[in-house]
Amino acid sequence: MPDIHNKSPSIAGFRLTRVGITNLKKQVKVVRSGRQITLMPVIDISVNLPSTQKGAHMSRNLEVTNEIVEESIKNPVDSLEELCEEISKGLLDKHEYANFAEVKMRSEYFLERKSPRGTDSLENYILIARAMSSRTDKNIETRKQIGVEAIGMTACPCAMETVRELIKNENGIDTPEMNKIPFISHNQRNRTSLIIEVPEKYQVEADDLIEIVESSFSSPTYELLKRQDEGELVLNAHKNPKFVEDVVRDILAKIIEKYQDLPDDVQVSVLSESLESIHKHNAFAERVTSLGELRK
Amino acid sequence: MPDIHNKSPSIAGFRLTRVGITNLKKQVKVVRSGRQITLMPVIDISVNLPSTQKGAHMSRNLEVTNEIVEESIKNPVDSLEELCEEISKGLLDKHEYANFAEVKMRSEYFLERKSPRGTDSLENYILIARAMSSRTDKNIETRKQIGVEAIGMTACPCAMETVRELIKNENGIDTPEMNKIPFISHNQRNRTSLIIEVPEKYQVEADDLIEIVESSFSSPTYELLKRQDEGELVLNAHKNPKFVEDVVRDILAKIIEKYQDLPDDVQVSVLSESLESIHKHNAFAERVTSLGELRK
Amino acid sequence: MPDIHNKSPSIAGFRLTRVGITNLKKQVKVVRSGRQITLMPVIDISVNLPSTQKGAHMSRNLEVTNEIVEESIKNPVDSLEELCEEISKGLLDKHEYANFAEVKMRSEYFLERKSPRGTDSLENYILIARAMSSRTDKNIETRKQIGVEAIGMTACPCAMETVRELIKNENGIDTPEMNKIPFISHNQRNRTSLIIEVPEKYQVEADDLIEIVESSFSSPTYELLKRQDEGELVLNAHKNPKFVEDVVRDILAKIIEKYQDLPDDVQVSVLSESLESIHKHNAFAERVTSLGELRK
Amino acid sequence: MPDIHNKSPSIAGFRLTRVGITNLKKQVKVVRSGRQITLMPVIDISVNLPSTQKGAHMSRNLEVTNEIVEESIKNPVDSLEELCEEISKGLLDKHEYANFAEVKMRSEYFLERKSPRGTDSLENYILIARAMSSRTDKNIETRKQIGVEAIGMTACPCAMETVRELIKNENGIDTPEMNKIPFISHNQRNRTSLIIEVPEKYQVEADDLIEIVESSFSSPTYELLKRQDEGELVLNAHKNPKFVEDVVRDILAKIIEKYQDLPDDVQVSVLSESLESIHKHNAFAERVTSLGELRK
Repeated sequence: MPDIHNKSPSIAGFRLTRVGITNLKKQVKVVRSGRQITLMPVIDISVNLPSTQKGAHMSRNLEVTNEIVEESIKNPVDSLEELCEEISKGLLDKHEYANFAEVKMRSEYFLERKSPRGTDSLENYILIARAMSSRTDKNIETRKQIGVEAIGMTACPCAMETVRELIKNENGIDTPEMNKIPFISHNQRNRTSLIIEVPEKYQVEADDLIEIVESSFSSPTYELLKRQDEGELVLNAHKNPKFVEDVVRDILAKIIEKYQDLPDDVQVSVLSESLESIHKHNAFAERVTSLGELRK
Repeated sequence: MPDIHNKSPSIAGFRLTRVGITNLKKQVKVVRSGRQITLMPVIDISVNLPSTQKGAHMSRNLEVTNEIVEESIKNPVDSLEELCEEISKGLLDKHEYANFAEVKMRSEYFLERKSPRGTDSLENYILIARAMSSRTDKNIETRKQIGVEAIGMTACPCAMETVRELIKNENGIDTPEMNKIPFISHNQRNRTSLIIEVPEKYQVEADDLIEIVESSFSSPTYELLKRQDEGELVLNAHKNPKFVEDVVRDILAKIIEKYQDLPDDVQVSVLSESLESIHKHNAFAERVTSLGELRK
Repeated sequence: MPDIHNKSPSIAGFRLTRVGITNLKKQVKVVRSGRQITLMPVIDISVNLPSTQKGAHMSRNLEVTNEIVEESIKNPVDSLEELCEEISKGLLDKHEYANFAEVKMRSEYFLERKSPRGTDSLENYILIARAMSSRTDKNIETRKQIGVEAIGMTACPCAMETVRELIKNENGIDTPEMNKIPFISHNQRNRTSLIIEVPEKYQVEADDLIEIVESSFSSPTYELLKRQDEGELVLNAHKNPKFVEDVVRDILAKIIEKYQDLPDDVQVSVLSESLESIHKHNAFAERVTSLGELRK
Repeated sequence: MPDIHNKSPSIAGFRLTRVGITNLKKQVKVVRSGRQITLMPVIDISVNLPSTQKGAHMSRNLEVTNEIVEESIKNPVDSLEELCEEISKGLLDKHEYANFAEVKMRSEYFLERKSPRGTDSLENYILIARAMSSRTDKNIETRKQIGVEAIGMTACPCAMETVRELIKNENGIDTPEMNKIPFISHNQRNRTSLIIEVPEKYQVEADDLIEIVESSFSSPTYELLKRQDEGELVLNAHKNPKFVEDVVRDILAKIIEKYQDLPDDVQVSVLSESLESIHKHNAFAERVTSLGELRK
C-alpha cells in the first residue's frame, strides 16, 4: 500500500512552518504542589515539514501523545509544561523529517481560596503550557512556557475622582472626609493572563503565577460571598483602583521580585482585558518582553 | 435520476419536528423608521417532516430564501420579522409535505445615541426575528416575533448599603450627607434581551424595544465618553442601582404601558444577564409569559 | 444591616420565571458503571421569584451547591442528573419563597473505544444533566434528564447516486460491479445530542445513550487511525450513508427498543447537525417528543 | 479636574507594548472593485505606552476612529487596510507620547459566485485588515496587511487509495477502470486564511486573494446546489484530492505567480484547517514567511 505522505508534493519547493492537529481533548495527570491532579486540556500539536515531503504523518502525533499521556497516568509528571516538553521531543523522534515540534495545552484548573472574611472557596483558572523543540545536528533543544489566566475585578481610578467632584458640587459638601474616603467608580470583570518561559533546570510554579495575577487586580473575585464579604471586597477594590495598565505593571514588578534567579533571556508576556461596564467594548493592556528588558 | 429524499425512510413511523439548515449568512435590506438599512443576519430555516418522507429537500430552503431576499433587495420589506414571515410561508409553498415552517434571524444593528452630555454615538445592538407558519387544511397561519439584545450597566443596590455602613464605621463619620448620597457598589456589564410577539395587523418597532431595554439598566453605555460624560454616567448608574431582577421587572412594566393595544395572548420574554464584577460567574433573571398574564 | 433582597420590589406585581446564576464551574465526582470519575461541569442554577420579593438570595445558590458538591466528593452520587436533583431540592429548601428550582450541568466526558481494527482509543463526549423541582403544598416533585452529545461522521446517500451516474457516463462504463459497490459522496463531521427524562426509580445510563448515538452515524470517529483503520472507517461509512434525518430516526428506533420499561410520558429530544462539507452552512434534523408518541 | 492618565504610574519603569480597546463594532464603507460596500467590522485599536505615562487616553482611540469612519461614510476609502492605516496614523497624531499604533479589523464579506453548473450564488467570506504605524523622529512609517478567510472542501488523497484497494479486494474486481476513476475518500469542511502585506504604493485586491484561496481547495462550496450541481462538485473534489498541506502549498505557488511585482520583504501567512470528518479534532497546516523566501 503506497505511503502517500512520503511522496514529493506535486508543487515542490515549499516547506511548511507547522503541520499538525488542533482541538484534541485529553485527560492527563500531573503533580502540582505534591498533589496529583486531573486536568482536561485542549491540545494543539505540530511539526514543521520540509519541501521534499508531501504530508506529515498525522497519526504519529496521536501515537506519541497517547503513549506519553498514558505513561503520565501511571507516573504523573511534575507539570503541564513538562508534559508538553516530553510530547514535543517525542514528535521529533517519530517525525524524522522534521526539525521543529510544538505542543500547546490549555486546561481548566481549580484552587482553594479564602474570601475577605475567610470563607473557603474553590476558584477556577486556566493553565496554559507550551513547548517548542528544535533539532540541530544531533541535539534537541526545548524551550517551554507555563502560563495562567485568572478573572478578577478592576475599579477605575479616573472616574472615581470625577464622581467625587460631581457629588461634592451637587450636594454642596466639601468636608475633609469626602477627600479621604474611596469613592464611587465603574468597576468590571477583568481577565488577565501571565505566561513565562521556564528554562531548563528551573521550576516555575503555576500556583505562584496565579497568586501574582490575582493580587494585582483591584480585588480578586469569589464564587460565594455573604453580604459582609461582598461589602468588604467592593470597598477594598475601590481603595485599590487600577487601570488595565496598572494591572500589567504590578504583575511585571512582582515577576522581577519573585524570579530573581531566572536568566535575562526568559520571555514574559502579560495581557489584561477589562469587560468595561461603561462601554460595550473592552479595554486592554499588554507587555511582551524578556526578564532582561524588565530589569533594566 | 432517483430522488432519494422522496423515498420512504428505511425506519418508518417517525416524523421529525424540524429539518433544515442553520448558520446561513445573508445580506438583506429592510426599511426601519423610514430609512433603508442593510443587515447581515445569521439565519436558521426549517420545516417539519412527515413519517412518510425520507428527507427534506434542503436546497428548496435556499431557493425560497434567495428569491425572497433578492426581492427584498429591490423592494425592502418593513421589518426583519416580516422577512422571516415571507420566507416561512414560501417554505410551506415549496415543501408540500410539511405543515410547519420556522425561520429565525439574528443580526448586528446600529442606532444613533446621545451620551449623558449630548455627544453623538453610534451604538450596536442585536436584532432577533422569528416566524413560525402552520398549515391547517387550506389556511396558513403565521406567528411572528421581534426581539432585541442590548448591553448596559447594572450597579448593585445591596452592596451599596453594606459599603456605606463599612465606610461610616471605618472612618467614624455619620453625617446626614453620608446617608443621602449614592455610594460605592459593584457594577458590571449586563446583556438583556426582550422578545415580543407581533400579531397580524399590528406593528412593533424594534427601536422602541431597544429604548425600553436601554432605559431599564442602571445606565446605558456608550462607545465614546469624555471624562465628564463618564463621571455623570457612573454617578447616574449609582443613583439608580438595580438587580437583574429589577431590570426585567422594569422592562415588563414598560411593555404593559407601551403596548396597551396588543392582545392578551401575545407572548413576551425578557432575559437579563450580568457579568458580575465580584464573581467569575454571571447572575441572571428571566420572565417568559403573555401580555394577559402581565396585565393581571 | 438591611436585607435588600427581602424588600418588596419598587415595581410590584411581577413574579419572575427564573432568577439565578450561569457559567459556574465546578469539579464534581460521580460513580459511573462502578468507577468513580471526576467531571468539570459548567452549571446553571435558578429558582422562581414571587412578586412580593425584590431579589433572590444569590449566595444561597452557591451555599447549597457547594455543600452538595463537597458531600459528593466524599460520597459520590450515582449520576450527574442525581447531583442536579439533590441541588435543585436543596435550592427549594433554602429559598423558602420559591416553588420552582432548576439545575443544569454540561461536562466533558471520556470513554474507552475501539477503532475498526481494534486499537484502543479514549474518545471525548459531552454529558448534559438537568433537574427541575416543583413545590406543591408540602410535596416536592422533581423531574430529571440525562443527555449526551457525540461527534461522528455522516455520508450523504443522495450525492452518492448522482456521482455514480456521473462516473458511469463520463467513463462509458456500466458494469454490474459499478452498481453494487458504495460510491463517492460528500461526508462530514456531525454533532448529535440525545436527551431523555429519567423518571423516579428508573435508571438511564449515559454510556448507553452514547452507544445509541454513536452507532447511528454513518460511522463513529476516532482520535487515532492508522492507514488501514482509516480506510475501513471511510468505506464502512459509505456502505451506511445517512441524512441527518436518518441519524435522528435511527436513534428514536433504538430508544424505543432499549427503554421498553420507561413510562409513556418520558420526554425525549434528539438533535443532529452536520457541518456540511459542500456548504458553508449546516444541515440539521430534530425531534422533540415523548416515548408514548414514539410508540404509537 | 486632574488628568489621572497623565500622572506617572506608581510603579515606574515599565513601558507597555499595547494599550487600547478590543471588540469595537462599527459600520464602515469602502470601495471595492468600483462598488461601494458596507462592512461591519470588529475592531481592535492600540498604541504603546512609555514608562512615564500612567494610562493611555482611551477615549482618544474612539475619537480618532469615529472621525475617520465618519469621513469614510462620505468619501469611502479604497480598501479596509487603507482605513486601518488612516486610523493608525490618526492614533499617533492624538497620542503624542506613543510611537507605535496598531489597528485590526475583521468583517463578514459577500461575493457573487457561480456554482459548477452556473447558478448564481452569494457566498460569504471574512476580510482581515491590519495596519501598524511607527514613529521615528519626524517620520511615520506604516506597514499594512490585507487578508481573507474562506470556507471550502478538502477530500483526502491518502484514504482514497486505501479504500480503492479495500474495495478491489472485497469485491474481487481489478479492472483498469477501477484504477483510473476517482474513489471514495473522507472529505470535510476546511477553513483557510491568507494574509499578505501591502507595501506603500502597491495594491492587493481582496477579491483576488479569495479567488486564490477558493481555487486551492479540493472544491469551493456553495450555498445553493441542485442535485446535478452537488454531484459535479463532489466528483470534482475527488478528482482533486488534497491534504491541508497541499492547500497551503497551492496558495503559495499562486501568490508567487500573481504578485511578481511585490518586493521580497512582503510578509505572507497561510493557514488551512480541516474539520476532519473522521476525527473529532482538526488537522492544520501553516506557512509564515516572506515573498523573498518563497521565491528562493
